[in-house]
Amino acid sequence: MTKRKIRRKLNIKTRAIRPRKIAQKKGKQPGAIIYVGDREGMASSVNIMEYNWDHLQEYSLASMTELEKQRDSNTNSWIDIIGISDEKFIEDLGKKFEINNLALEDAINTQQRPKIDEYDNYIFGVFKMLYLDDNQQLVVEHIALTLFKHNVLVFQELKGDVFNGVRERLRNRTGKIRAKGADYLFFALIDAVVDSYFEVSENIFERIDTLEDEVYYDPKPDTARKIQELKKEVIRMHKWIFPVKEMIHRLIETDNPMISKDTRLYLRDALDHCIEINETLQIYREMSISLMEMYMTSVSNKMNEVMKVLTIMASIFIPLTFIAGIYGMNFEYMPELNWRYGYSVVLALMLIILVGMLIFFKKKRWI
Amino acid sequence: MTKRKIRRKLNIKTRAIRPRKIAQKKGKQPGAIIYVGDREGMASSVNIMEYNWDHLQEYSLASMTELEKQRDSNTNSWIDIIGISDEKFIEDLGKKFEINNLALEDAINTQQRPKIDEYDNYIFGVFKMLYLDDNQQLVVEHIALTLFKHNVLVFQELKGDVFNGVRERLRNRTGKIRAKGADYLFFALIDAVVDSYFEVSENIFERIDTLEDEVYYDPKPDTARKIQELKKEVIRMHKWIFPVKEMIHRLIETDNPMISKDTRLYLRDALDHCIEINETLQIYREMSISLMEMYMTSVSNKMNEVMKVLTIMASIFIPLTFIAGIYGMNFEYMPELNWRYGYSVVLALMLIILVGMLIFFKKKRWI
Amino acid sequence: MTKRKIRRKLNIKTRAIRPRKIAQKKGKQPGAIIYVGDREGMASSVNIMEYNWDHLQEYSLASMTELEKQRDSNTNSWIDIIGISDEKFIEDLGKKFEINNLALEDAINTQQRPKIDEYDNYIFGVFKMLYLDDNQQLVVEHIALTLFKHNVLVFQELKGDVFNGVRERLRNRTGKIRAKGADYLFFALIDAVVDSYFEVSENIFERIDTLEDEVYYDPKPDTARKIQELKKEVIRMHKWIFPVKEMIHRLIETDNPMISKDTRLYLRDALDHCIEINETLQIYREMSISLMEMYMTSVSNKMNEVMKVLTIMASIFIPLTFIAGIYGMNFEYMPELNWRYGYSVVLALMLIILVGMLIFFKKKRWI
Amino acid sequence: MTKRKIRRKLNIKTRAIRPRKIAQKKGKQPGAIIYVGDREGMASSVNIMEYNWDHLQEYSLASMTELEKQRDSNTNSWIDIIGISDEKFIEDLGKKFEINNLALEDAINTQQRPKIDEYDNYIFGVFKMLYLDDNQQLVVEHIALTLFKHNVLVFQELKGDVFNGVRERLRNRTGKIRAKGADYLFFALIDAVVDSYFEVSENIFERIDTLEDEVYYDPKPDTARKIQELKKEVIRMHKWIFPVKEMIHRLIETDNPMISKDTRLYLRDALDHCIEINETLQIYREMSISLMEMYMTSVSNKMNEVMKVLTIMASIFIPLTFIAGIYGMNFEYMPELNWRYGYSVVLALMLIILVGMLIFFKKKRWI
Amino acid sequence: MTKRKIRRKLNIKTRAIRPRKIAQKKGKQPGAIIYVGDREGMASSVNIMEYNWDHLQEYSLASMTELEKQRDSNTNSWIDIIGISDEKFIEDLGKKFEINNLALEDAINTQQRPKIDEYDNYIFGVFKMLYLDDNQQLVVEHIALTLFKHNVLVFQELKGDVFNGVRERLRNRTGKIRAKGADYLFFALIDAVVDSYFEVSENIFERIDTLEDEVYYDPKPDTARKIQELKKEVIRMHKWIFPVKEMIHRLIETDNPMISKDTRLYLRDALDHCIEINETLQIYREMSISLMEMYMTSVSNKMNEVMKVLTIMASIFIPLTFIAGIYGMNFEYMPELNWRYGYSVVLALMLIILVGMLIFFKKKRWI
Ligand SMILES: [Mg+2]
Ligand SMILES: [Mg+2]
Ligand SMILES: [Mg+2]
Ligand SMILES: [Mg+2]
Ligand SMILES: [Mg+2]
Ligand SMILES: [Mg+2]
Ligand SMILES: [Mg+2]
Ligand SMILES: [Mg+2]
Ligand SMILES: [Mg+2]
Ligand SMILES: [Mg+2]
Ligand SMILES: [Mg+2]
Ligand SMILES: [Mg+2]
Ligand SMILES: [Mg+2]
Ligand SMILES: [Mg+2]
Ligand SMILES: [Mg+2]
Ligand SMILES: [Mg+2]
Ligand SMILES: [Mg+2]
Ligand SMILES: [Mg+2]
Ligand SMILES: [Mg+2]
Ligand SMILES: [Mg+2]
Ligand SMILES: [Mg+2]
Ligand SMILES: [Mg+2]
Ligand SMILES: [Mg+2]
Ligand SMILES: [Mg+2]
Ligand SMILES: [Mg+2]
Ligand SMILES: [Mg+2]
Ligand SMILES: [Mg+2]
Ligand SMILES: [Mg+2]
Ligand SMILES: [Mg+2]
Ligand SMILES: [Mg+2]
Ligand SMILES: [Mg+2]
Repeated sequence: MTKRKIRRKLNIKTRAIRPRKIAQKKGKQPGAIIYVGDREGMASSVNIMEYNWDHLQEYSLASMTELEKQRDSNTNSWIDIIGISDEKFIEDLGKKFEINNLALEDAINTQQRPKIDEYDNYIFGVFKMLYLDDNQQLVVEHIALTLFKHNVLVFQELKGDVFNGVRERLRNRTGKIRAKGADYLFFALIDAVVDSYFEVSENIFERIDTLEDEVYYDPKPDTARKIQELKKEVIRMHKWIFPVKEMIHRLIETDNPMISKDTRLYLRDALDHCIEINETLQIYREMSISLMEMYMTSVSNKMNEVMKVLTIMASIFIPLTFIAGIYGMNFEYMPELNWRYGYSVVLALMLIILVGMLIFFKKKRWI
Repeated sequence: MTKRKIRRKLNIKTRAIRPRKIAQKKGKQPGAIIYVGDREGMASSVNIMEYNWDHLQEYSLASMTELEKQRDSNTNSWIDIIGISDEKFIEDLGKKFEINNLALEDAINTQQRPKIDEYDNYIFGVFKMLYLDDNQQLVVEHIALTLFKHNVLVFQELKGDVFNGVRERLRNRTGKIRAKGADYLFFALIDAVVDSYFEVSENIFERIDTLEDEVYYDPKPDTARKIQELKKEVIRMHKWIFPVKEMIHRLIETDNPMISKDTRLYLRDALDHCIEINETLQIYREMSISLMEMYMTSVSNKMNEVMKVLTIMASIFIPLTFIAGIYGMNFEYMPELNWRYGYSVVLALMLIILVGMLIFFKKKRWI
Repeated sequence: MTKRKIRRKLNIKTRAIRPRKIAQKKGKQPGAIIYVGDREGMASSVNIMEYNWDHLQEYSLASMTELEKQRDSNTNSWIDIIGISDEKFIEDLGKKFEINNLALEDAINTQQRPKIDEYDNYIFGVFKMLYLDDNQQLVVEHIALTLFKHNVLVFQELKGDVFNGVRERLRNRTGKIRAKGADYLFFALIDAVVDSYFEVSENIFERIDTLEDEVYYDPKPDTARKIQELKKEVIRMHKWIFPVKEMIHRLIETDNPMISKDTRLYLRDALDHCIEINETLQIYREMSISLMEMYMTSVSNKMNEVMKVLTIMASIFIPLTFIAGIYGMNFEYMPELNWRYGYSVVLALMLIILVGMLIFFKKKRWI
Repeated sequence: MTKRKIRRKLNIKTRAIRPRKIAQKKGKQPGAIIYVGDREGMASSVNIMEYNWDHLQEYSLASMTELEKQRDSNTNSWIDIIGISDEKFIEDLGKKFEINNLALEDAINTQQRPKIDEYDNYIFGVFKMLYLDDNQQLVVEHIALTLFKHNVLVFQELKGDVFNGVRERLRNRTGKIRAKGADYLFFALIDAVVDSYFEVSENIFERIDTLEDEVYYDPKPDTARKIQELKKEVIRMHKWIFPVKEMIHRLIETDNPMISKDTRLYLRDALDHCIEINETLQIYREMSISLMEMYMTSVSNKMNEVMKVLTIMASIFIPLTFIAGIYGMNFEYMPELNWRYGYSVVLALMLIILVGMLIFFKKKRWI
Repeated sequence: MTKRKIRRKLNIKTRAIRPRKIAQKKGKQPGAIIYVGDREGMASSVNIMEYNWDHLQEYSLASMTELEKQRDSNTNSWIDIIGISDEKFIEDLGKKFEINNLALEDAINTQQRPKIDEYDNYIFGVFKMLYLDDNQQLVVEHIALTLFKHNVLVFQELKGDVFNGVRERLRNRTGKIRAKGADYLFFALIDAVVDSYFEVSENIFERIDTLEDEVYYDPKPDTARKIQELKKEVIRMHKWIFPVKEMIHRLIETDNPMISKDTRLYLRDALDHCIEINETLQIYREMSISLMEMYMTSVSNKMNEVMKVLTIMASIFIPLTFIAGIYGMNFEYMPELNWRYGYSVVLALMLIILVGMLIFFKKKRWI
């Protein structure tokens, strides 16, 4: 696979280290609602799940005024906004819920790193969702969660997500999710995001395992490149995942009454998973460094082998050729030449030298 | 030993860095009691040791209702649950003791990293137990300890463990264990787990020592691989052992009245051991890095030796062959050829060059 | 490009690691108003933007007494001092605003690292402004911002800066800038400086990308040098940018009443960006280390290839030459020589050896 | 020196990273008084120095009851227990002074890392004493100091120690030691232990210096091994010495009334020395890494030199031999062969090529 | 320059990592007034500058009783003690000012690392002064500053120092130094010491710059050694300079009334410079690591070039020589030999092979 192809395949992921887009905002005031990302021109759609223990209603948003009903009612709802590049729509929606422009700006800035901000009436969090699409390609999706007293707003870039398990639990009344408040839904979504990291991590593990075999049994120049790409990918994942640990910790420790004591217990469980995934990434990092080390070792060992072949061949045949050269000289008076057994004796001498050299190399354990 | 074999041998240990199983729980609610691990299909059995200073009773649990007796009595007991893949059984048992589902879930999730959680009526801890089985193979076993006022529940995966010393002390009334509360038993089990790390650490030390000799006296491409496997194993052990230090520290510092002042003194002793084992692992890590460095040095030195042989052989015989070549030319007018002593003089010249070259290489300390 | 040329191109940037100029101040009392830098002999000019919601006035300062008016009036103004090498002028201006000599000294010391100092009536900050000039060359400009209750003083070295966006927002009444206090202007200028780091960071990203291709497809000795220059530049940028994170954090946390609660919210947004840029620089650092590693790998792989060619050529032809040498000997009694098919058989033998060697090398996967 | 010999020489020191002995305690209760170490079978002897300003008495302990007198008297005494492998004796002695079994256990566990524990009536500290014996071999001795109100108990493994200076000051009434309390004696012993680290550190410095010369002027494969042994030794010393800094710091900061304000001033002085020795070890570590780097550089440079010789010899003589080969061909029609000056011209041509090559290599600065 | 010469040149600097002298104090009581250093046998002289705003008096101390006058008067004075190896003199002087023996000991122990200690009536600080002497050689001088209410005592080893600027400001009444208290003089001396670090740092920068050119354009084995020496020197400077940051910080934060609020403002300025110099040293460290990396790269690239020349020469001429060897064989029946155009055709064939090889190497970009 050529580098260009690799790059094309990774282009979604490389985004995280591309500072280009954010530079376009130069000179703009803070809080300017501008989509930063590469999934432009998508219409926003809004799916709503309104629920309490007794009933559940799912529907797509038809008009903005329906949002006001959700905002003001006391039943919980999950308001799922899909497609964030329609800046006008996002701005209107933000106004309905009185979301600060600084938060809205970050909700649609896919360069924004993960973070939690607490405002007076809501808690706003930015995450990166990682999952494999139907073609087993990694998708990195920017996502923002906003927790109100009775609502959770989700801003996501694309249609697919990692929340189907949560949806099923809501529909089937599995566990306690329908019995609990919006803060539990907020937790459940974060938990699903964190769980998604394990899947991607598994994918990385398999690549490490494959590369390990390649390094040991068939190292090629291309192998080194693959190891470096792997290392870069682990670094990137670290960038997306590492802040989440601190974010969940802050949600557990905050004195914000929107997070119930019971939900904090669950967040502690999610925190465990976050610590685990970060440790795993750290180990992958060290493993990729070891892989590179092993690769260099393989290259050196192969060079050693090449040199040994050369040295053995040259050390054996150069002296023999010299002897042949001696008796190829055209001096008139070379008594050996006329000797009856000259030729046989020289051949025998050559054989002795050959065997001697072989023993020497055998002793040196080169052959 | 081929890599596949190495891997099979290590398969228990590699688990710790395999994120696969946990991904199966995707979409499940938190607190879902699902066994995560590779020791499935094992029936659970429960052994109980009930004791106070005056008497000790050991028996296997026949029916769940016996558990209620233990739960409600004021004598101490050690309830040892062996085999944790029977999810239904674990769930029932958990309900009897009113253990939070989040804790139960972690008790049977072998991917869970070591941790201590304090609940209202009990303290719940997850550890990794390391020991050598009868074939001297390393076993890594997930274990969960739960301290109640008068009971310690132990969840373990397999039959063997590192607690025989504690059992003997209970049976023989050695030391103060029978005179003290359940918190002392809880400590004694943790202490036994920590002691087990030293045994495995000793095993690693011996591997380092063997590899050191191999690197110095007979480095092979395979040596590098063994060093890398060693490094990976130390990293893994660090992952299992490092959190325990912080866990014991928290047990010492907690204001939980279940841990008596006296037991904290003993925990401080266990903490010492934890610090020691972590320092040792750190040193092993640096030693394995040094081993790799030495290996690379050995490879370079061997290459140097190979090159010297080649250079010496070629530098001596290539010029001599050239001289022979000169007098092998077929020019009609080559006065030396007809000279009576031509052959002898040329042979003498060659000898002088040979000796000269040998002196040159001797001076350079190459031979 | 020769090194001298590279150096000339970079000469503005290398300044940061050149301790020369500051040494000239040896023995001077602290607070001595001495310009330290390499943009000497520039006259200072002062541009003033005075504004509130209703009107805006822009003018160049004609006489010092106009400054007193600004100092004492209650409308906000941005006093932009361009050119800081005229020490006398700076000292006079400083006296008008009662700026401590220690602050003034740092305002015109381009070696001063970024920092925030709070004085009784003003807050004084030093930054480095990074931007590309019209020839796409990087300019590093020392800049000092001083926030008074109704004034912001900006000391900058050269005419160009990164504040045109802020000027436009003031002129066009975009956003809330005209409605807010001097502290918001102070924030807006800091925000513009931080935004400028993203642009330079983008430039670095492109250089990394180019070097990556060069390392993979066409590594030259010069490539290593370029990677090292890149690494040095990232280190330098880190030096200029890293302190800003802590500085903004302090502005958010200070109990200084000059910074309103609302402005702190905006500073939190700028802090996000600062964290982001620092993370990015950290990743660039690791990438440049990886590049160097890959370069070394490339060099080793190329050496391997060279050695293989040599070994193949020598291993094939040296034995063949030896055989030819045998039959070039001039012994009288060499029966093969007179054999009718001698020549053909020897040629056939040589062909067999040649093919045998080729198969051998094919098997070793060298060809 | 062979590796086995090196190892035998270092065997006392390697102990610190050998986890073997401690594993024997598996299953034992905490506080079991078991000697862990390799200086077994030594009888314990006890030397006592009882002193105040006016008189000093030195004697060897004859019976345990004498200890009770020391324990209960108000004169200071230094009770020096030499030989700690007699577990019964240590246990009895411990009971007399009511020392906690956990402390006693650590006093005779030579694997115990340095630490300070405060008990109700005494302060217990474990240290490693480092010194050179009469054969200039490094001795590492486990030592435990216990400070009571009027007594200092010292547990040491062997007869020699670093306390002769303290003994002399006691005998000669030098300085204030006879005028001060047991806490000052406790400090003086710690101070002597810390001073001993400087001596060993000096020894390491000399080894670094010798290795530096070896690396620069005569690098051998063995040199690399010596550097690695050095690095390992510095790591080990760090393990023994590093904790002492924190220990002394705790003695300075504790609110324990047994340590007088005046003694804390002296401890601050010892702390200075501890910081110094730790910094020095850190520098040694970096120097040993640099040494290894230089060694690798030397190996590469030597390889370069070897290759240059080969290349020069081969590049000069292989083409010349080819030319000789041309005119060694037996074609019938080779006009040059019959030419009168053919031989001379070919020889001249060869000379020109030779000189040309030499100039080429001179230009490349290879010769 | 040979290593011995380098070492002699550096001998003052190596002192910092030589633990030798301090070991001589083994067994001495703390506070023993013993000179530790290599500038022994120097008589002490004392220069005094007594000053207030109105007058200034400079004189050399004739008798100890004059010191009492200075000690008790209320005018400020700078008491400059030059030469600290006369232990008796230092002890007497210390008694006059009631300086604690622990402080006096450190004042004349040139191994003492930089530190600040606060005593009841004075503040005692140890620094390292770095400057170039008249021969442009680096001098490292141990210096101790003691601040009393109206006096500053300076203990320095040698006659030269970095305080001439301060002396001139005192004599010429430049700035506020004559108007302020002894604490400002104390600050001014510390500030001068810190400024001196910049000069030495500039010297290091120039060495890095020179080595960079050497590595790029003319790397020799000696270059590696110079880089290592540089690295060691940066490490040493770090050891001397790093603690000063924390020391100045403590002077700013202390609640000691001897340091006025105004002086703290000036100390904050010196702290800035300390942070700057430490950052610079950190960058030098990374640059010296990069230099070593580049050196290794250069060595590898040169090896590559050597190997290419060898491979090209051998690959071209070995096959050609083989062909010549074929037709040098003496078989009777070799039809080509008798062919009229045999010789020309073989020569042509050789030419074709030669050109083919050249094209091959051109394609590989080796030539
Ligand atoms: Mg913004
Ligand atoms: Mg994204
Ligand atoms: Mg989506
Ligand atoms: Mg989860
Ligand atoms: Mg594997
Ligand atoms: Mg869990
Ligand atoms: Mg869970
Ligand atoms: Mg496990
Ligand atoms: Mg088990
Ligand atoms: Mg234990
Ligand atoms: Mg060993
Ligand atoms: Mg212990
Ligand atoms: Mg200054
Ligand atoms: Mg200054
Ligand atoms: Mg600048
Ligand atoms: Mg400008
Ligand atoms: Mg911004
Ligand atoms: Mg790329
Ligand atoms: Mg933002
Ligand atoms: Mg124990
Ligand atoms: Mg020991
Ligand atoms: Mg002893
Ligand atoms: Mg001492
Ligand atoms: Mg030296
Ligand atoms: Mg001292
Ligand atoms: Mg001392
Ligand atoms: Mg001096
Ligand atoms: Mg200064
Ligand atoms: Mg340069
Ligand atoms: Mg300043
Ligand atoms: Mg390296």
